Amino acid sequence: MVFSAAEISALLQGEIVGNPETKVHTIAPIDKATKGSLSFLHNPKYFKFLAATKASIVLVPKNIDLPESPSTFIKLNDVYGAFSRLLSEVSEMQNHHPKGIEEGSFVHASARVGENSYVGAFAYVGENAKVGSGSKIYPGVYLGRNVEVGNNTILYPGVKVYTNCKIGNDVIIHSGTVIGSDGFGFVPQPDGSFQKMPQIGNVVIYDDVEIGANTTIDRATFESTIINKGAKLDNLIQIAHNVEIGHSTAVAAQAGISGSTKVGKYCLVGGQAGIVGHIEIADQSKIGAKAGIGKSIKQPNKGWSGRPAVEHIESLKMQAANKQLPDALRRLRELEKEIEVLKNKLK
Amino acid sequence: MVFSAAEISALLQGEIVGNPETKVHTIAPIDKATKGSLSFLHNPKYFKFLAATKASIVLVPKNIDLPESPSTFIKLNDVYGAFSRLLSEVSEMQNHHPKGIEEGSFVHASARVGENSYVGAFAYVGENAKVGSGSKIYPGVYLGRNVEVGNNTILYPGVKVYTNCKIGNDVIIHSGTVIGSDGFGFVPQPDGSFQKMPQIGNVVIYDDVEIGANTTIDRATFESTIINKGAKLDNLIQIAHNVEIGHSTAVAAQAGISGSTKVGKYCLVGGQAGIVGHIEIADQSKIGAKAGIGKSIKQPNKGWSGRPAVEHIESLKMQAANKQLPDALRRLRELEKEIEVLKNKLK
Amino acid sequence: MVFSAAEISALLQGEIVGNPETKVHTIAPIDKATKGSLSFLHNPKYFKFLAATKASIVLVPKNIDLPESPSTFIKLNDVYGAFSRLLSEVSEMQNHHPKGIEEGSFVHASARVGENSYVGAFAYVGENAKVGSGSKIYPGVYLGRNVEVGNNTILYPGVKVYTNCKIGNDVIIHSGTVIGSDGFGFVPQPDGSFQKMPQIGNVVIYDDVEIGANTTIDRATFESTIINKGAKLDNLIQIAHNVEIGHSTAVAAQAGISGSTKVGKYCLVGGQAGIVGHIEIADQSKIGAKAGIGKSIKQPNKGWSGRPAVEHIESLKMQAANKQLPDALRRLRELEKEIEVLKNKLK
Repeated sequence: MVFSAAEISALLQGEIVGNPETKVHTIAPIDKATKGSLSFLHNPKYFKFLAATKASIVLVPKNIDLPESPSTFIKLNDVYGAFSRLLSEVSEMQNHHPKGIEEGSFVHASARVGENSYVGAFAYVGENAKVGSGSKIYPGVYLGRNVEVGNNTILYPGVKVYTNCKIGNDVIIHSGTVIGSDGFGFVPQPDGSFQKMPQIGNVVIYDDVEIGANTTIDRATFESTIINKGAKLDNLIQIAHNVEIGHSTAVAAQAGISGSTKVGKYCLVGGQAGIVGHIEIADQSKIGAKAGIGKSIKQPNKGWSGRPAVEHIESLKMQAANKQLPDALRRLRELEKEIEVLKNKLK
Repeated sequence: MVFSAAEISALLQGEIVGNPETKVHTIAPIDKATKGSLSFLHNPKYFKFLAATKASIVLVPKNIDLPESPSTFIKLNDVYGAFSRLLSEVSEMQNHHPKGIEEGSFVHASARVGENSYVGAFAYVGENAKVGSGSKIYPGVYLGRNVEVGNNTILYPGVKVYTNCKIGNDVIIHSGTVIGSDGFGFVPQPDGSFQKMPQIGNVVIYDDVEIGANTTIDRATFESTIINKGAKLDNLIQIAHNVEIGHSTAVAAQAGISGSTKVGKYCLVGGQAGIVGHIEIADQSKIGAKAGIGKSIKQPNKGWSGRPAVEHIESLKMQAANKQLPDALRRLRELEKEIEVLKNKLK
Repeated sequence: MVFSAAEISALLQGEIVGNPETKVHTIAPIDKATKGSLSFLHNPKYFKFLAATKASIVLVPKNIDLPESPSTFIKLNDVYGAFSRLLSEVSEMQNHHPKGIEEGSFVHASARVGENSYVGAFAYVGENAKVGSGSKIYPGVYLGRNVEVGNNTILYPGVKVYTNCKIGNDVIIHSGTVIGSDGFGFVPQPDGSFQKMPQIGNVVIYDDVEIGANTTIDRATFESTIINKGAKLDNLIQIAHNVEIGHSTAVAAQAGISGSTKVGKYCLVGGQAGIVGHIEIADQSKIGAKAGIGKSIKQPNKGWSGRPAVEHIESLKMQAANKQLPDALRRLRELEKEIEVLKNKLK
């Protein structure tokens, strides 16, 4: 694919500084770009590379001073957003849109698949399952009995959805993710063994959710495990039974959220963070990577880190203090000796 | 499904206080229940909701004082166990019992599948593999050469079992879990590269084990990686080669156990905990969430937490002390100044 | 399989001490071996078991003193390497070598599969995908459009490779691993919701890489996420978009590496470690289990641990100091009292 500065500027409603005929055929970071590349400048850390970049076209913020340069610049109000729109355009051109029921798939006689949807080979659409229109059920996906999938939703190869779970519109779920496996619930018996607590609830995923690869979302013991509208979950995340993830909350890879916990709206949960069960996390909470959250967070819009987590600013102080600790212990011993000397003198 | 208090009480051998004709059609937590719901009271934290609950039927412990209420109560010796039995009953009614070899599956001519078992579409039963009776091999499951699966065992969609692994009776394995992948063993070469150490052992899973979704259990280098009877493993757990998990031990999500480690019986391992290789964990050990266990635990029936893990009670003291640390450092500097003053006075 | 000491010694170019006719049919650890077993002695910790072992044959280092024993010994320059070669031989005999396109697979008309390769049932080879010669595409594998797989590469059951990704020669990828899922990139909107940043790059995996089960490697936003030659990745690892893993670097299970980070050559990354995005890790770095790496590591060949990670030796000091902390706080209070007494005396 080849684009000219004029075409890109028109698409992104920018302002060209330089030659509108300049052409690009690839995208590269500003410090590594070669002739024929498009770059963008969003993070101020990279501003220093602007003067010397070899990129043929650079998307730049409207308000910065442009250097003398053979590059063509396109000034934009929101570089990151504009770059995202450009990638969407390229992505749209690259993507094929498979449609129809591919040979080798299994669609139960009682199941319904809407118009313009795709069901790939080796995909399994179970008894009474419903798939809306414009959705893509890639090869090897499994939809159990009574599963409902909305419109324009994409389930990538190998996604498994257990019986009775519901997935909304415009949802994206990546390969290997499991929706609706049994919650981890057992009743300890007097002899130390476990009796399984049946898990008869389901999982409900609302519109505009995206879920990464190999994530697991357990069904509720009863009622529903819920992923609210616009939430974004990364890869390899554990969502236990009866958890609720709030609207437009983002959870990074390998985080784990234990049973019945409710995470608020607009929260950010860092990678490898862990949240215990049966608590509530206030809206707009920012939980650091690897943090361990052991009790409810009641004040919204605060940062938390460490294990057990404290407010982020406290955590930084504790970390700094910890580095001084071996030396502090030495000084403490020193003081003890000195005070002994003084005490003897004053006897 | 609609149940009356009389029916439920008969099933659970309880004692009705209220109207035996009261009917319920759903299950809900006691603080959110509406008319037509069944609730249960197990955790004392929730006792305060009993008087005001709108639940039509509530399962309650035998020995508590019942409030004036329009609800019907069923008194029970063991509310949680009884509730579990009730869910089993509902679950049994909800579940269909697929049977037979579904069209589109692959069963090798030399493989054997027992009576009343199910092999779903796109499931692969390899050369010389054996499946017992009453087992369910859901769509997309892979059983390699010589794999053995016992009776009444359920392998949910997409479970993969490599060559020579053995799975007992009444086992449940959830979607995406991998049994028998190669252990992570490499011989470092003089040039810094790695030579693969072949992994010719297998995995043996005994009866009554349940394993969650997307967990991985590597085959032994030689001999067997072993999951003993009644052990329960959650989602996204890593079990490395030659590990042994003890009888009725429960491991929570995202925990990882390194090579050749032996975890005892009746242990609890918390979420995201990590255990290094080549050690032994005594029976009934309780390992906290996110704990890092770096050496063998020899005394049984103790709690451990932190990284590196110490006894739980010590860990709590260290955590409390850590919070005071920034202030303690300030006080230490203060003392150093004061002692300097005293020393000068006494010169 | 039965081997004689003479056969094993010839294969491994060792020197027999004892009866060359001694036969073994299994492999066992030296402290648990019974008659008919082969054992090996590599770790000095186990030397004490040599005199009493019941193993019929023991592989031993050339330079150790052999006890009086009914066992037959084979002296070797490099016991571990020799044992690895022996396992390879056994593994080779155990393995069958499936070939050809198995019935029930899907190979797009435009795809190409090389000589002596295997495509299992329910494997999907998409439009314009290419598989080299001698490779094994096991049942349930998905290769998207334009995917390229080299020669003698093994993709175990259920591996998913998204569009445009490239996999080299002699690569092994275990079940359930996902290559090329979308990076976790979203543009926050003024209303707090997220707009998806399209991910149009790919993943490139070079020769001799091995990747464990249920690991996820996201495609680059643009350009490539790269796993260099000879790198070894364990199970359940998260590799985010635009990451680069260096030549012959080994990453243990459940580690996570965030977006755009570049890990050097010959590094070791411990289990459950986390590395933030947009940093560089120097060659030969050794990162401890559960470590949290928050900034670039510039000096090569050092060990790091803790969270936030410090040099390993510092981390050990901090851990030791931490254990003394509750007591140190008590001593600090003591000193404060004593100094108060002294100050009063000197008033």
